[in-house]
Amino acid sequence: MRFVTAPPLLMISVEEATRLVAATIRPLSVEYLSLPLAAGRILREDLQADRDFPPFNRVAMDGIALRFGALESGQTEFRIESTQFAGQPPTPLQDLAAAVEIMTGAALPEGVDTVIRYEDLTFRTDDAGQRYATVQVLPPRRGHNVHTRAADRRQGDLLVPAGTRLEPAEVAVAATIGAATVAVTRRPRVAVVSTGDELVPITEKPAAHQIRRSNALMLQAAAWQTGAEADTFHFDDDPEALRQGLPALLSGYDAVVLSGGVSKGKADFLPETLRELGVEQIFHEVQQRPGKPFWFGQQPGGAVVFALPGNPVSTFVNFYRYARPWLLAAQQPEAPETLGTTAASGGPVAAVLTEYVQFRPRLTHFLLVRLEHGPDGRLRATPERAGGSGDMASLLTSAGFLELPPEQEQFPAGSVLPAWRFR
Amino acid sequence: MRFVTAPPLLMISVEEATRLVAATIRPLSVEYLSLPLAAGRILREDLQADRDFPPFNRVAMDGIALRFGALESGQTEFRIESTQFAGQPPTPLQDLAAAVEIMTGAALPEGVDTVIRYEDLTFRTDDAGQRYATVQVLPPRRGHNVHTRAADRRQGDLLVPAGTRLEPAEVAVAATIGAATVAVTRRPRVAVVSTGDELVPITEKPAAHQIRRSNALMLQAAAWQTGAEADTFHFDDDPEALRQGLPALLSGYDAVVLSGGVSKGKADFLPETLRELGVEQIFHEVQQRPGKPFWFGQQPGGAVVFALPGNPVSTFVNFYRYARPWLLAAQQPEAPETLGTTAASGGPVAAVLTEYVQFRPRLTHFLLVRLEHGPDGRLRATPERAGGSGDMASLLTSAGFLELPPEQEQFPAGSVLPAWRFR
Repeated sequence: MRFVTAPPLLMISVEEATRLVAATIRPLSVEYLSLPLAAGRILREDLQADRDFPPFNRVAMDGIALRFGALESGQTEFRIESTQFAGQPPTPLQDLAAAVEIMTGAALPEGVDTVIRYEDLTFRTDDAGQRYATVQVLPPRRGHNVHTRAADRRQGDLLVPAGTRLEPAEVAVAATIGAATVAVTRRPRVAVVSTGDELVPITEKPAAHQIRRSNALMLQAAAWQTGAEADTFHFDDDPEALRQGLPALLSGYDAVVLSGGVSKGKADFLPETLRELGVEQIFHEVQQRPGKPFWFGQQPGGAVVFALPGNPVSTFVNFYRYARPWLLAAQQPEAPETLGTTAASGGPVAAVLTEYVQFRPRLTHFLLVRLEHGPDGRLRATPERAGGSGDMASLLTSAGFLELPPEQEQFPAGSVLPAWRFR
Repeated sequence: MRFVTAPPLLMISVEEATRLVAATIRPLSVEYLSLPLAAGRILREDLQADRDFPPFNRVAMDGIALRFGALESGQTEFRIESTQFAGQPPTPLQDLAAAVEIMTGAALPEGVDTVIRYEDLTFRTDDAGQRYATVQVLPPRRGHNVHTRAADRRQGDLLVPAGTRLEPAEVAVAATIGAATVAVTRRPRVAVVSTGDELVPITEKPAAHQIRRSNALMLQAAAWQTGAEADTFHFDDDPEALRQGLPALLSGYDAVVLSGGVSKGKADFLPETLRELGVEQIFHEVQQRPGKPFWFGQQPGGAVVFALPGNPVSTFVNFYRYARPWLLAAQQPEAPETLGTTAASGGPVAAVLTEYVQFRPRLTHFLLVRLEHGPDGRLRATPERAGGSGDMASLLTSAGFLELPPEQEQFPAGSVLPAWRFR
């Protein structure tokens, strides 16, 4: 049994912690998936245009195709020489004074250059059954209602660079170029571990002094939101149980996220046990609240270990501040300099504080806030009245946290600060 | 073969279309899932506190627990009477001048009311092995470092109302109250149907006048993002093929989303075919660009039908404007008055236009924009230079669209307008 008294504080800053966490990232390996299954994943190859966009002079409205020059010379009535549907090979216009009735999506035939939509035409049929169209509204220019070949992109153009998430628009473009199978990052594998003898399974009724395990399920759901696979585990506050159970997790997962067991308490032997198991400690304790006891390390050749404090708000905030950006960045083709530099990589956006806030300790303060887009287009952050880092219910009504820098004590209403969103 | 000439325009407004789409919503049925599997779903029962939050006077720091009154009377050294770990039943203090060494998460024993953390203590051990702690930093108040029972919520309090999405924080709270199985909305079932003879499968090399099917995969990926199951189908431009294939979709899915076949072209028999199949037309044509030919209907007792124009930008924008909010609202416990009233329901947020825009036609204009959070906390919308509704590549660089109202032609830089996000 180890008795710990107040040690010298050698805490690192939030910025340094962020940089050290980022430095452990090695891009996850690639897998090849059929296009629908790749939706939501990070692309690991460049997608280039296999043809021009559009690949032919594409008719953009239903109507008739004709020569603009004929209109310029005063002609308004046109004999319908042929009809062309989308998907049919185009037949060149024979009589340059005639027109082709034509449908949206068709390839414009040779000899015509402009499309007049039905709404701007009248039709008549002569006794021989020949149809004629009269142009009622003149088009503004040659090429009207024609989406010109290569107007948007040229064959060989880079369309979607590696590192892009395959959202619906990227899926559409991949389909268009025939990328039926694409290279994407495999899912990160996360082991979520809760510790603490006071915790009982969620299916059990806790005794008066016990609570149910909630952090593990919370972290699992949060990991899933990054695209990761996540399994949950629980260990009692017993070094031997950890020594038995952790090695398989350290070698089988990309990241092990623990909650609890990293404070200065008598039952907090987790850092020591991790070191015994060969996990290299990268830092322990960060100049922040909540989450000062955050311990971070890496098993050589194995998982990184985010050992987060066990208070629910602390666990939650530190997951979103460090682990989520790590899981997003590890899916990118290249390791980043630091974490969370963009909202897409799990980073913050600027928000306007709506009330005066004071925070005295020289720590970075993660302040739970409600977030709303004001009618002026500004993202407004209102501090949540939370009961401290044990107040799990305060997470229900907040949407993120502001990061208040340590060198400042007073934050007037109207201050613009980084807001990390978790919903 | 039907020849359509310019019909009288009886288009409805975007607002009216939105209201009519919303009016078809009947909340989807409930299913019961184990908690991890329910993550991301919409809750269909209220979650109430089964106990107080916290359920006991919870120790918030590692250290010693003592009577604040003893400190007030000048006592600074305390004999350690016992040690209490988290998860152990609390043992009442016997000697009111002594203290309990205690760990975070433990239930505070009777007789003590205040916790002094290790950092504010020194320890000594006498010859008999008895330990004593001396308080170096006095606590500011009785109850310091104790998270008082019921401080956050009381037993019976409503924690998470029905209709809330089970994000990680809600999962944590559900776990804490022992909601191992929860009632949630089943996934919406969406059939995505592409039409058009010009379309070939993505695994095939298209002829010069053909393109690959991309809309269906795009819509499938977009439907997945609402929590729906989505299957894709393709029909040629042939009324008979539609008459054969559509009935099973109309009865087997909640929503059928079609792209193409709703314009005025000769091959656009979809509205007629749908009516023949018994689908009630609710509207056809909306005062909007892109997407004027949008057709909407409902099979009595069956699916709603979103028949979207086939140009990719038009398909995409109209899915996000109408179908996505429908799919989100149908997962709620109660049918809404209209769609997209909040960002969480797929609706817009206010954004600031960065450039002057002019749009003359008396139509609601959906303008593709890039979106960025400015350093002042404002969401800034910059028009994307798109090549019209056929320019699929413009979807790659835009993040949403502004909704420009029809009664206005000029939109100065700085205008605040509703922005519908698709990424």
